[in-house]
Amino acid sequence: MSKLNGLSSRYRVDEGDGFRLGVWDPADTNGLSDDAAMQDLARLSEVQEALYAQNCWSMLLILQGMDTAGKGGAARYVMSRMDPRGCYVAGFGRPSAEELGHDFLWRTGRHLPERGRIGIFNRSYYEEVLVVRVHSGVLGSQQLPPELVTRTIWEERFEDINAFERHLTRNGTLVLKFFLNISKEEQKSRLLSRLDDPRKRWRFDPTSVAERQRWDDYMTAYEEVIRATATPHAPWYVIPADNRWFALLAVASAVVDAMEKLGLTISEVGPELQEQLLSARIMLEND
Amino acid sequence: MSKLNGLSSRYRVDEGDGFRLGVWDPADTNGLSDDAAMQDLARLSEVQEALYAQNCWSMLLILQGMDTAGKGGAARYVMSRMDPRGCYVAGFGRPSAEELGHDFLWRTGRHLPERGRIGIFNRSYYEEVLVVRVHSGVLGSQQLPPELVTRTIWEERFEDINAFERHLTRNGTLVLKFFLNISKEEQKSRLLSRLDDPRKRWRFDPTSVAERQRWDDYMTAYEEVIRATATPHAPWYVIPADNRWFALLAVASAVVDAMEKLGLTISEVGPELQEQLLSARIMLEND
Repeated sequence: MSKLNGLSSRYRVDEGDGFRLGVWDPADTNGLSDDAAMQDLARLSEVQEALYAQNCWSMLLILQGMDTAGKGGAARYVMSRMDPRGCYVAGFGRPSAEELGHDFLWRTGRHLPERGRIGIFNRSYYEEVLVVRVHSGVLGSQQLPPELVTRTIWEERFEDINAFERHLTRNGTLVLKFFLNISKEEQKSRLLSRLDDPRKRWRFDPTSVAERQRWDDYMTAYEEVIRATATPHAPWYVIPADNRWFALLAVASAVVDAMEKLGLTISEVGPELQEQLLSARIMLEND
Repeated sequence: MSKLNGLSSRYRVDEGDGFRLGVWDPADTNGLSDDAAMQDLARLSEVQEALYAQNCWSMLLILQGMDTAGKGGAARYVMSRMDPRGCYVAGFGRPSAEELGHDFLWRTGRHLPERGRIGIFNRSYYEEVLVVRVHSGVLGSQQLPPELVTRTIWEERFEDINAFERHLTRNGTLVLKFFLNISKEEQKSRLLSRLDDPRKRWRFDPTSVAERQRWDDYMTAYEEVIRATATPHAPWYVIPADNRWFALLAVASAVVDAMEKLGLTISEVGPELQEQLLSARIMLEND
């Protein structure tokens, strides 16, 4: 039995009610050790090929987490196992003026994956209920009509996100959301190592330290996000991320498990194409 | 009292339950006559200027109706009264392969109006519950995973549309939807006049005649659409469209009424800008 198979279910939250972040251990490795784990990731590229060949489902992977939690690394890792024709990464930093001119789901819209494709979002519209919520000033800069900025705005955003994701899944997009759960101590050590190593220094973002001061606010915001938006059609995965290798393994496992649940196979071609393939063979053999 | 003011409320449906299309007269002109009607459309450009200046609300006008009902004419008419910096028309014909590769709301997404702008949709995502419903074969060509094409697909689409429009309005977009209600007799005469007049002939679309054979199916589909998606936040306007001039008047009236309800004014500028304007005046006067 593969180490990868079914591992993800341990970290899946598909019913947010009563979710408490504090009980999830960022250092958990499910009893696995580093060297035992990386054996059967070939499965990742197989399921992607089937998705691409079938060309009717698509998959959206949303990566969220504090700075240094490993979002970029996870995106790179999944990509590296896949045919780049069928998989891409989109990052969402500070929104542009044009993006602020639209509703908060708009900017991600053009990057949604087409049928047969896997789209990986490094940050996403969830920032609109995370950073925008933690820093109350940001909402004021979003040019919303003041009468629409009500006390229920976060509940409204959760409701809109749930409806949006339900719509996506109804139209053939699997939606998987990952919270890369890193501890505050591990973040400190990763930030210091970026400062210490000249080759890593360019990756150090000074705002990380300011954001770190709001750690507890962010954890509360993440907890509420997961409570409000973990659903059977678009589950959250709370991924222990203090060990990089384990976070990658758990993310990969979730992707494989979700695609296997679809029962995708690189199916036998239809009768019409079969006939064409037959004539092609005859032409080639008589060539 | 202006003829335009408040006219639209007569044709607004903001609660779809029990809606019956048959009782709406396509030839109604609300007792007005052609020449009396066109006087005060300057209001249209005033309210647009206020919307543009305030730059926080936007407006989405959706035009639906059978061929020759006057969608293009209504779009051109509204546009002609407006500053084109702040208003544009997007048309939605047969979807491209890329568009079919996404959920059914996706293709319209990139054309949603930015804050301060008015976007006019000539046809829209409502085609997904109209032409796609009337011609059952179309759904089969949309590459949806077969297990998602269920008996509840239309209810799901209505629910997704309602959630989407609610999301838009929560984020500052007014959504106004117009069914240009033309009679079958009037369509016949308009199609014949396109055939008869060499200068109009290029506008004759042969598929119109085939679609006309499904007239009753379309009326049933429109009735169900309005029942399911007329809401206080995104009302339908059932516009009598047998008289072109009256349809234009009624659409313009709805636009003006909706914007006036916002109470937009080209407001006094804030204190900071006021100071800048004052120094600008001093510099100019000493120039």
